[in-house]
Amino acid sequence: MTNLAPLTNHQVRLAARPVGLPTRDGWSFSTEPVTEPSAGGIVIKTLSLSLDPAMRGWMNEGKSYIAPVGIGEVMRAGGIGKVIASANPKFAVDDIVTAGLGVQQYAAFDEAGIKQAGVAKIDLRMGSITQWLNVLGMPGMTGYFGLMDVGQPKAGETVVVSGAAGAVGQTVGQLAKIKGCRVVGIAGGKAKCDWVVNELGFDACIDYKGGSVRDGLKEHCPKGVDIYFDNVGGEILDQVLAKINRKARIIICGAISQYNNTTAIQGPKNYLSLLVNRARMEGIVVFDYADRYPIAIAEMAGYLKDGKMKSKEDIVVGIETFPETLLKLFNGENFGKLVLQVAAE
Amino acid sequence: MTNLAPLTNHQVRLAARPVGLPTRDGWSFSTEPVTEPSAGGIVIKTLSLSLDPAMRGWMNEGKSYIAPVGIGEVMRAGGIGKVIASANPKFAVDDIVTAGLGVQQYAAFDEAGIKQAGVAKIDLRMGSITQWLNVLGMPGMTGYFGLMDVGQPKAGETVVVSGAAGAVGQTVGQLAKIKGCRVVGIAGGKAKCDWVVNELGFDACIDYKGGSVRDGLKEHCPKGVDIYFDNVGGEILDQVLAKINRKARIIICGAISQYNNTTAIQGPKNYLSLLVNRARMEGIVVFDYADRYPIAIAEMAGYLKDGKMKSKEDIVVGIETFPETLLKLFNGENFGKLVLQVAAE
Repeated sequence: MTNLAPLTNHQVRLAARPVGLPTRDGWSFSTEPVTEPSAGGIVIKTLSLSLDPAMRGWMNEGKSYIAPVGIGEVMRAGGIGKVIASANPKFAVDDIVTAGLGVQQYAAFDEAGIKQAGVAKIDLRMGSITQWLNVLGMPGMTGYFGLMDVGQPKAGETVVVSGAAGAVGQTVGQLAKIKGCRVVGIAGGKAKCDWVVNELGFDACIDYKGGSVRDGLKEHCPKGVDIYFDNVGGEILDQVLAKINRKARIIICGAISQYNNTTAIQGPKNYLSLLVNRARMEGIVVFDYADRYPIAIAEMAGYLKDGKMKSKEDIVVGIETFPETLLKLFNGENFGKLVLQVAAE
Repeated sequence: MTNLAPLTNHQVRLAARPVGLPTRDGWSFSTEPVTEPSAGGIVIKTLSLSLDPAMRGWMNEGKSYIAPVGIGEVMRAGGIGKVIASANPKFAVDDIVTAGLGVQQYAAFDEAGIKQAGVAKIDLRMGSITQWLNVLGMPGMTGYFGLMDVGQPKAGETVVVSGAAGAVGQTVGQLAKIKGCRVVGIAGGKAKCDWVVNELGFDACIDYKGGSVRDGLKEHCPKGVDIYFDNVGGEILDQVLAKINRKARIIICGAISQYNNTTAIQGPKNYLSLLVNRARMEGIVVFDYADRYPIAIAEMAGYLKDGKMKSKEDIVVGIETFPETLLKLFNGENFGKLVLQVAAE
């Protein structure tokens, strides 16, 4: 059992609701002592945190699929940690767990908090810590249930995915290939595009920074688009809407191009393509599928083991880098799933 | 058998693709003699034509769910007519039929044309000629399959329908009431709103010309919106998106507010509400359900007979009024299903 007394918990808190990009002055930094767990509780040392576009939404006021992070609260984040003290028979010291840890070095939960934070043991034989934040974690689950449940891919169909080199995108594209689809990614920059084609086996990838998405879709989707998994919104969504087939499915997973807007969100001007093509556009929130995560995790871990699925993480070290590291998501700088490593072990 | 020799067929043809509202100078008027039917063919005298918002779309160039009307061609229109000459054993003189007649006084079809135009006998005991263009016709079928197949209403849910006093809207609202839903219409003007509430039995109707749609939704949809049947697009779609419930269904039937735009269509700025609420937005084109029309017609005719469903048509007389009559749809002047009566019998 670790002696907790000398430990200090460094935390990152939301200091102000951002307008546009969340800059460093919108965060505050605090320290707290780490104390022994309450009866039934545990203390977890944060190893790695998942940084995701959705975090930007949690920083806004107002109704969403989840309550906003309050001003002054530790920023919400999912991650992987190690149990360092336990007063709960279900968890032992050194257990590796996934949980809503928050952007902090240590997370203490009482018995109710354990449930609320979704603390669950993970098996590192199924995948590495970073894979548990990626393919086997929230992004992987989002990609899996978005594609399989909402998209319902059929072999031979054409699947387009934006944010193709990102955490959700890489899962969606590889899974669609496994299911027998033609897969066309959209990503920013030649390096990302080359990687999803050469390493992940996508059929093609359109570099939205290097050319016209419209021309790319025309070239690489000669039979139109049956499924579009949208992580970005904006102009790209409109371009794909112009190319969808009858009965196409558009999965709305996010709209990273719009999250930091200081003006109104740009709605899809081509939405009447849904009418012309009897197509549907449907939103997905991964939490709805929580009771089926184990099934998806088992399937995906199998693909990882067989080499049918690869994963790439972009790992930045140090909790103090959180404000700048988060911004990598919004300027497209991250290459692969963005992970903040808080402690090596 | 009518002597066809003295008859002249007055026709309205598309002369130019409109920019914005389709004005009279975009139409041309022609006359042709009426000749005996070819072997296997028939000649139909047009009685009444259905004027629909969708006609505006058919006048645009470019890919849609149906080929555009060519420049110089008789304007496409569905209608009810009487067979006045037949060289086809399936049709007898005096049969009343529904068909894609076009905006003309007489329509002649050869055997292939009969199929292509969807000529089908109708039973006036099930409904009047105008009801066959309304509840028992395309608008009724659109409302029926859009609501039932795409919307899948459950008793107790709240259904909102725009264009509530129009042909599709009146069907959708009454059908949703029959299925046990709370129904809130959106229409322009007090007269229309009073009518859908007092005559058709909607629970409420929001007058978008007389006040704020947002406030109206707040007042009349205390439990949020489960189904939105959208005929109008634009701002109203955005207002409803802000009020949808989890797993809501938005049926995109049309966007009459946008059809005559000379600038880009306004996309729904609030479309990310689909994500937050895991909701879907889906387009419908009625032709897809053609093989199930008879089932829907039988059900709806039953409601008409039992007085559970009412219908209202706005009938304008004279083919020469077509250009101005069509515009009634776009300025919201029509009250009920807009019908152009070409001949009384």
